[in-house]
Amino acid sequence: MTREIDLNCDAGESFGPWPMGDDDTLIPLMTSVSVACGAHAGDPQVMRRTIELAGRHGVAVGAHPGYPDLQGFGRRSLGLGPSEVRDWLLAQIGALAAIARACGVALRHVKPHGALYNAAADDAVLAEAVAEAVRLFDPALILIARAGSIQVEAGRAAGLQVAEEAFADRGYDAGGRLLPRADPAALVRDPAAAAHRAVEMVSRGGVLAADGTWVALRPRTLCVHSDTPGAAAIAAAVRAALVGAGMRLVPMSAPTEGPA
Amino acid sequence: MTREIDLNCDAGESFGPWPMGDDDTLIPLMTSVSVACGAHAGDPQVMRRTIELAGRHGVAVGAHPGYPDLQGFGRRSLGLGPSEVRDWLLAQIGALAAIARACGVALRHVKPHGALYNAAADDAVLAEAVAEAVRLFDPALILIARAGSIQVEAGRAAGLQVAEEAFADRGYDAGGRLLPRADPAALVRDPAAAAHRAVEMVSRGGVLAADGTWVALRPRTLCVHSDTPGAAAIAAAVRAALVGAGMRLVPMSAPTEGPA
Amino acid sequence: MTREIDLNCDAGESFGPWPMGDDDTLIPLMTSVSVACGAHAGDPQVMRRTIELAGRHGVAVGAHPGYPDLQGFGRRSLGLGPSEVRDWLLAQIGALAAIARACGVALRHVKPHGALYNAAADDAVLAEAVAEAVRLFDPALILIARAGSIQVEAGRAAGLQVAEEAFADRGYDAGGRLLPRADPAALVRDPAAAAHRAVEMVSRGGVLAADGTWVALRPRTLCVHSDTPGAAAIAAAVRAALVGAGMRLVPMSAPTEGPA
Amino acid sequence: MTREIDLNCDAGESFGPWPMGDDDTLIPLMTSVSVACGAHAGDPQVMRRTIELAGRHGVAVGAHPGYPDLQGFGRRSLGLGPSEVRDWLLAQIGALAAIARACGVALRHVKPHGALYNAAADDAVLAEAVAEAVRLFDPALILIARAGSIQVEAGRAAGLQVAEEAFADRGYDAGGRLLPRADPAALVRDPAAAAHRAVEMVSRGGVLAADGTWVALRPRTLCVHSDTPGAAAIAAAVRAALVGAGMRLVPMSAPTEGPA
Repeated sequence: MTREIDLNCDAGESFGPWPMGDDDTLIPLMTSVSVACGAHAGDPQVMRRTIELAGRHGVAVGAHPGYPDLQGFGRRSLGLGPSEVRDWLLAQIGALAAIARACGVALRHVKPHGALYNAAADDAVLAEAVAEAVRLFDPALILIARAGSIQVEAGRAAGLQVAEEAFADRGYDAGGRLLPRADPAALVRDPAAAAHRAVEMVSRGGVLAADGTWVALRPRTLCVHSDTPGAAAIAAAVRAALVGAGMRLVPMSAPTEGPA
Repeated sequence: MTREIDLNCDAGESFGPWPMGDDDTLIPLMTSVSVACGAHAGDPQVMRRTIELAGRHGVAVGAHPGYPDLQGFGRRSLGLGPSEVRDWLLAQIGALAAIARACGVALRHVKPHGALYNAAADDAVLAEAVAEAVRLFDPALILIARAGSIQVEAGRAAGLQVAEEAFADRGYDAGGRLLPRADPAALVRDPAAAAHRAVEMVSRGGVLAADGTWVALRPRTLCVHSDTPGAAAIAAAVRAALVGAGMRLVPMSAPTEGPA
Repeated sequence: MTREIDLNCDAGESFGPWPMGDDDTLIPLMTSVSVACGAHAGDPQVMRRTIELAGRHGVAVGAHPGYPDLQGFGRRSLGLGPSEVRDWLLAQIGALAAIARACGVALRHVKPHGALYNAAADDAVLAEAVAEAVRLFDPALILIARAGSIQVEAGRAAGLQVAEEAFADRGYDAGGRLLPRADPAALVRDPAAAAHRAVEMVSRGGVLAADGTWVALRPRTLCVHSDTPGAAAIAAAVRAALVGAGMRLVPMSAPTEGPA
Repeated sequence: MTREIDLNCDAGESFGPWPMGDDDTLIPLMTSVSVACGAHAGDPQVMRRTIELAGRHGVAVGAHPGYPDLQGFGRRSLGLGPSEVRDWLLAQIGALAAIARACGVALRHVKPHGALYNAAADDAVLAEAVAEAVRLFDPALILIARAGSIQVEAGRAAGLQVAEEAFADRGYDAGGRLLPRADPAALVRDPAAAAHRAVEMVSRGGVLAADGTWVALRPRTLCVHSDTPGAAAIAAAVRAALVGAGMRLVPMSAPTEGPA
């Protein structure tokens, strides 16, 4: 039996004159990309270039909405309430979807960014607001959520298809949360180590937390970061290791064969 | 034979803590409203409130995208090229359409704002970019354009339904352009005068320019401003005068009866 | 013995096309105004107009820096660390001071805004960062801080002159904190009630909290809000009541006579 | 007789999560740097890091204010009027000066950025507004202006010390203007060519325009760009060539020896 896995990264996080990430190298290594929507990063020109690039490589495109805070890159909590979160997500998904449609590309998924992703993984009210925004925009969109989090349940309760996500290049705590970026173990910078974790996450269904605890995870998609140093080397190593371990790289939106 | 006319105003131009315009009073007097999309004014919460308000009053809703410049309120030319204009419009229309869909409201039209409206009325390349954005998003949307301008032709060439617009409360020059806001005759502040102009524009098919020239216009929609002092009094006077002159107030999207 | 008190309000909180507050009416009633610096509200044109207005009325001018968040009006916590707070304050105070200098006006005080004011009143690390920013810019500036808060101590520890502040038109809890704006008792809307509280705060040295507890306060300045409905009526009533009770309205920077 | 010349670049043009330019390499090669002030680029944290870096290398620091337009990087004309330009410059210079003072560094000069630099080089009204802002902030600051432009005269008429500037790595037209960036000859990418031009500009007092015309220039400072590919190699080559040609690299603020 072949395991299927999606490989995703964030993309389109440049803004105006400022490039970010090596999208040209990374996107072709992915099966899905989550494109920033102009609130924490990205602008309409960047959105178009990124969607066109993904389209040329046949990579599935999703929306990557975040808190409206360019300087903080969506990594600061703004303390928005649920209706604010819902409407900010709708506006961002709608903006990206419009440009995607103009490019002849259909959105496949939504993945919240940064502080919003983390907040909604732990807070049922925000998790519901995120799920509601996706459902209201298009209930056929897949919601990417941190494996094992409240967001997974909230998405399914809203009738959405939810893809559980694990991070090949991030350290975990015993509760299945990502270590904060200030923690020295937050980022796995060694491509071989990230590749090993990726294979283990999929084949063994879990990851070793920083304190040695085994954390069970059932990821349908693995994320590699696009904004860390050496992102392309990590992505290539992760991809090669997954393929080498006999896994099939398949976008989330593809129908699965047999038990996942 | 009854003449049909649409009456529109801009709406949703508040931002964060700052209210603008008396939408509660004005919207019920209109047949269509153009809602700001977050670039020159508006934010997702304001968009929702405005769309819900228009929905409750059965007023047709359109997008009012502008240059991305809050401090300048979209009234400064940013000198964007055509592909930038197209993508900024797509992002804004998409954002508003997503929130409208979540409110159960369908967009009916697009009307560019401020400096972009004026630039595209006089510049064929920008006019084409505006028309292309609307067509790419949804070719069933009506494009509102300054009566007699290049934008009218560009919209029709792109296969769009174009509604020619005249301004009941703005002064005109002999070329059919709005007098710049710095001109003392730019704004018609007297409700009776605005009402008289409105009726004349529709019944006689034109308006007297500031220099006394007769400018021929065939408006399908009349705009009253929402951000001028006394906007509500002007809107009420214009509406009453149109009805009193035997005209039927009908949104642009309604099928017309007989010759327009 | 005559008690001296300063009366202050926020000002210059318009932005671009959006007016806020009735500065023309309020400023002449004050002895000090705190002018927004472009981060939570205000822009360079608004700063100049506000400083010139205060200058014409002989009202002392201070800086009112806040979190950089226009849509949230500086009322959302951004979770900035102390060095970020310090540098954001320096940039804002510097911006306002430059425009003030060009108007021939010297800054007299600094009062943080909104979420930053509240955070620094309760968090020693942020309170120190605020005090350090003021000291680094100009140690002769007075720091306005919530009466009885950590910010008062932090400012004095940094060698600053600190003016303790109480709010005539806000409800208090038993700990001397302002009730959150969502609380129905947060705003005192009745001018007579606000005026009574103002006199009591100064003459009796305290205020009755919402739960009936007596909270001791020794304010050197009283704030009336500029952005609440009826702000001008409240300000006029507070001023009249203070004068009627025999108090002298004196800016904070004036030397005090006798024991304060 | 030794010729003296200043070598400057822009710096501090990162923003939030987005780095720009190789300030660590470039700044030590300069005698002066112009630091972005948060309107077209930069933020308070970036300002501090950049000023501290320049301070450690003993490089003179100036303000680099621009149009308030992050996405457009200050390269789009906003069409601001003279009083808006003046107040935006004051706010930006003030912001940077406050952070510089906190770092124990004094500002030495002001150099407008991008579209504002170009507009004020050709428009007497804007040139006066720029000069007025600098004079109002501190008449001891040096104003950097395009060699031979209207800004040079306007600055001197305002009583300022003006440093005429030439660009080692930009192509010129016959009128002494920089070729627009869309022109293939706008950027001189070859370090040797840029170095040759730099020496020629100083030693021969001019530059060959793209059409072969000799344009006379008397630069007191030469600019190398920080945001072009290979900027560090160009800067190193220019510096080495100037030194090799017997010129003394001296900041603008230093008293000159003998005829300049």
